[in-house]
Amino acid sequence: MKKIEHIGIAVKDLQDSNILFSKLLNTMPYKQETVESEGVTTSFFQTGPNKIELLEATNPDSPIAKFIEKKGEGIHHIAFEVDNIEEEIIRLKAEGFTVLNETPKKGADNKLVAFLHPKSSNGVLIELCQEIR
Amino acid sequence: MKKIEHIGIAVKDLQDSNILFSKLLNTMPYKQETVESEGVTTSFFQTGPNKIELLEATNPDSPIAKFIEKKGEGIHHIAFEVDNIEEEIIRLKAEGFTVLNETPKKGADNKLVAFLHPKSSNGVLIELCQEIR
Repeated sequence: MKKIEHIGIAVKDLQDSNILFSKLLNTMPYKQETVESEGVTTSFFQTGPNKIELLEATNPDSPIAKFIEKKGEGIHHIAFEVDNIEEEIIRLKAEGFTVLNETPKKGADNKLVAFLHPKSSNGVLIELCQEIR
Repeated sequence: MKKIEHIGIAVKDLQDSNILFSKLLNTMPYKQETVESEGVTTSFFQTGPNKIELLEATNPDSPIAKFIEKKGEGIHHIAFEVDNIEEEIIRLKAEGFTVLNETPKKGADNKLVAFLHPKSSNGVLIELCQEIR
């Protein structure tokens, strides 16, 4: 794990939350992107070497809609940047973690991503991500 | 906000979770520290420019014990590093955030810290922290 690439935060209204986080972080979002396959519209803020990703559901069946229904708005996942996502998946499976995507998939922000089930990591949804070169 | 200084994760058993996160992050905790005034024992992992802080309650009235009782283990807060915590508190109050510690207090890891109420920040408990020089 090279660093925290981003923290994903589930929000009900992306435009309202863009304003809120612009005030909090004292910077504007640098990108907004919809990933239809994941049912999310995202916006990204840069804070030094890290990013904050806001996630709004695009439909009621989106994992983000279900998360908010169950837990309310708040932190959804931590994403760690890795050099080689396939190797990390193999390493973490061998360590006993439950990898939800044994084949990495295309995520937002030009990344290959894979998730670890929160039950195997103290209730924390972990994303691995590797920049697509 | 200069960067994500750390993410705080509430855990039931610090020794078990130290082992789990050592596997996840592929590194050992570099420090363990009890902050009696906050009712927590913490351990810290370095991941590039960021840290992961695990938090275990020292007593049943600890905010961490109450958090786990209500929400289960998981991400408790995001801490952002700032250059001047007093100035950030003034700026964020003016922006409408609810600052829980108008006078910063001594936290773990040689930091002055102040928290923002999650109700004013999309359900996310935000910590500001400044290294004590």
